[in-house]
Amino acid sequence: MEVRFLDDILARVREALARSDLQAAADMLESLRPADQADVFSELDEEEQIALLPRLNPEDSADILEKMDELEAAELASELPDEALIPIVDEMEPDEAADLLGDIQEERVHAVLAGLEDPEEIHPLLLHPDDSAGGLMTSEFLALRRRMTAAEAIEAIRAWKPEAETIYYLFVVDAHGRLSGVVNLRQLIIADPDTLIADIMDPDVIYVTEGVDQEECARLMSRYDLLALPVVDAEKRLVGVVTIDDVVDVLVEEATEDIQRLGGAEPLDRSYLDTSVWMIMRKRIGWLLLLFVTESLTGTVLRHFEDELQAVVALSFFVPLLIGTGGNAGSQTTSTIIRALAVGDIDLGDAFRSLWHELRVGLLLGLGMASVAYLRALSWGSSPELALTVSLAIFAIVLWANGLGAVLPLLATRIGIDPTVVSGPVMSTLVDATGLFIYLSIAKMVLGI
Amino acid sequence: MEVRFLDDILARVREALARSDLQAAADMLESLRPADQADVFSELDEEEQIALLPRLNPEDSADILEKMDELEAAELASELPDEALIPIVDEMEPDEAADLLGDIQEERVHAVLAGLEDPEEIHPLLLHPDDSAGGLMTSEFLALRRRMTAAEAIEAIRAWKPEAETIYYLFVVDAHGRLSGVVNLRQLIIADPDTLIADIMDPDVIYVTEGVDQEECARLMSRYDLLALPVVDAEKRLVGVVTIDDVVDVLVEEATEDIQRLGGAEPLDRSYLDTSVWMIMRKRIGWLLLLFVTESLTGTVLRHFEDELQAVVALSFFVPLLIGTGGNAGSQTTSTIIRALAVGDIDLGDAFRSLWHELRVGLLLGLGMASVAYLRALSWGSSPELALTVSLAIFAIVLWANGLGAVLPLLATRIGIDPTVVSGPVMSTLVDATGLFIYLSIAKMVLGI
Repeated sequence: MEVRFLDDILARVREALARSDLQAAADMLESLRPADQADVFSELDEEEQIALLPRLNPEDSADILEKMDELEAAELASELPDEALIPIVDEMEPDEAADLLGDIQEERVHAVLAGLEDPEEIHPLLLHPDDSAGGLMTSEFLALRRRMTAAEAIEAIRAWKPEAETIYYLFVVDAHGRLSGVVNLRQLIIADPDTLIADIMDPDVIYVTEGVDQEECARLMSRYDLLALPVVDAEKRLVGVVTIDDVVDVLVEEATEDIQRLGGAEPLDRSYLDTSVWMIMRKRIGWLLLLFVTESLTGTVLRHFEDELQAVVALSFFVPLLIGTGGNAGSQTTSTIIRALAVGDIDLGDAFRSLWHELRVGLLLGLGMASVAYLRALSWGSSPELALTVSLAIFAIVLWANGLGAVLPLLATRIGIDPTVVSGPVMSTLVDATGLFIYLSIAKMVLGI
Repeated sequence: MEVRFLDDILARVREALARSDLQAAADMLESLRPADQADVFSELDEEEQIALLPRLNPEDSADILEKMDELEAAELASELPDEALIPIVDEMEPDEAADLLGDIQEERVHAVLAGLEDPEEIHPLLLHPDDSAGGLMTSEFLALRRRMTAAEAIEAIRAWKPEAETIYYLFVVDAHGRLSGVVNLRQLIIADPDTLIADIMDPDVIYVTEGVDQEECARLMSRYDLLALPVVDAEKRLVGVVTIDDVVDVLVEEATEDIQRLGGAEPLDRSYLDTSVWMIMRKRIGWLLLLFVTESLTGTVLRHFEDELQAVVALSFFVPLLIGTGGNAGSQTTSTIIRALAVGDIDLGDAFRSLWHELRVGLLLGLGMASVAYLRALSWGSSPELALTVSLAIFAIVLWANGLGAVLPLLATRIGIDPTVVSGPVMSTLVDATGLFIYLSIAKMVLGI
């Protein structure tokens, strides 16, 4: 319903543009909420966007650029002349403005910064990577002093007229600007107007330093139910505030990246249908080739056992079934372990407990699957010896896949690699060649070939 | 560092419990933040927990139960006598209390409700599923009236002394309790004290009805950067408020479920190491068996082509390589499509665009992989005809896997199934049998066997 409504607006904006009525198109866009403005705007052609953006008021243009995919926004900004871009950047939140400037040509950044009203709000943010606390934070915050009264603090808030997102937690600093407490707006309002900030503030503040990763910020804010997280420099001076709306975006973005990596592809930088076919191909071909090369080990194993396979042709009928089941068991394990690592249920110190947990799960699963496989093989008319081979093999392969699935993500984390690279496809591929070796070795022993 | 600090506290709590000094153990726990209290508390044995909980003050016990895994909290609550449980439930947030009561024995719920100070806060919440807006919302909110002044509104807030989480957005209702606007605390503070609420409120409020799914609530709040989302009944009367901290938990929980399902397992109900080996096995065996049965189709296909396989034994060396690559290409596609659906980048209306997108990606990937496979087959000493077979097969299989990977999650969504069930393992399994059929049919034609 909502989407159809936006489609309708889009059609009317296009119609207005077709008859060159820029003002009508701008009015229609401005009647929408920022996220919806960005959605409709993104659907327009680039020339239409460039023509329309300077006609919108700078606050709306700023909202649109903040809500668009980062790369798309940067491309668009690069096309705008300085005199159109500067007033828009002036209206953006400092953290979003810094992200945008970080993505456009370096020689233009200086020109734009020079034209801004408050370049010093944005400048320090440019020094930090986008995915660190320093890149995520806003430098627009109001710091209170311990000797202020509640009434004076409320007066300061009124005089400041802040953006909504940074007002609900107010941080208290000492004479050197060092973080010394936090007070929330509720406490300020409820307090007797003459109370000193020092008496109502909580001196035990949770904070991070500028270099802390954005995932760690998200984990802290989600764990302690924070709406804002103060960021300090090496001297514990307050330099910015990370707000919950940015962290919600981080959570969604990180889950997207994890899921794409688990599927065996590099994460896309923009929304799916806006990513070109060529770019999606480039994000996938690397893994596909690497897995192909690893997978070709299966051919080596099969040729190694060529005589056995020729002696009992029926052995080959079970190959996809056995290695497929191993890959599935391994995927189940890695996805559980990877997520448990991501949400902090386990850490490296739990490596042995996790392995032991998975080996016991693998034992139970292996026993269950072995019984089913035994009956299945008999029902296909296989000899009892072949059925026994298949069922022993599936037991061993499931146990092996579960162990490998538990160890690999932990090992990746240990050596500083994102554990999501040990995804389902990587697991299946590793289990395929090793599983074949296990299967055919067992066949050789049981069948005496 | 943080974790080691908690381990240290845990050791000291255990030590105090060992010498039966319940008070010392309680004091140590009470010095921590709620999330940390819950972590340390969860590590204790059940008897220790039952002994300790009534010694903590009810606010702390309430925080601990709110932060523990839901099933663990319910088990613990079931063990407590009514006179210990009631004061704790009284201190819990209404939405969390309703979740807890929904998980304990029904006959106890009435006794507990009867003992509460404000049972009517919790009672309506029990009627909604945990994962709907009605189950997620809190019924503890302050509604303003249009004719109030800003000063009166602030006075009302002071008199009410609310929990922090529901104060930053204040919703305005008419004489019938129907939602008619929203005003945020910042606006109230900045406004002239005599301004009427009707003049500063935004009448265009984003709201949901009680039955709306929690994922939709999260999507709306993340899209529009909301800190609170009002929930109304069928008559548009305000009945509750969903707050951002609950939505952050929903986002983390839903991502966990998606990732576990993508790995081919049912999601776990509690944290990994707290889930018994037996329970993990039960969450996985169903899928593993279902995939096993589907995968055994590969055996049927192989037996169908028994003569061809015996004529050219080398054909079988490429089987795992070809079906493995097909499974990998399919997993890459499904995980991209599933995530694009989840974050709203695409919806069912984009089905054909998505399929067309993936078919073109498949074409490029297929051409790339076919060239590599041709050279690889030759380097293994295969005949040019066999190399051609393998390379045609891999092209067709990758194209097929990409198409299938695009269509299946959309089809699942269309018929009302969670698209994550069409996960990597399901894809690999489907592609295995069909891929084999494609490969051996091409072999029959090219090699003329």
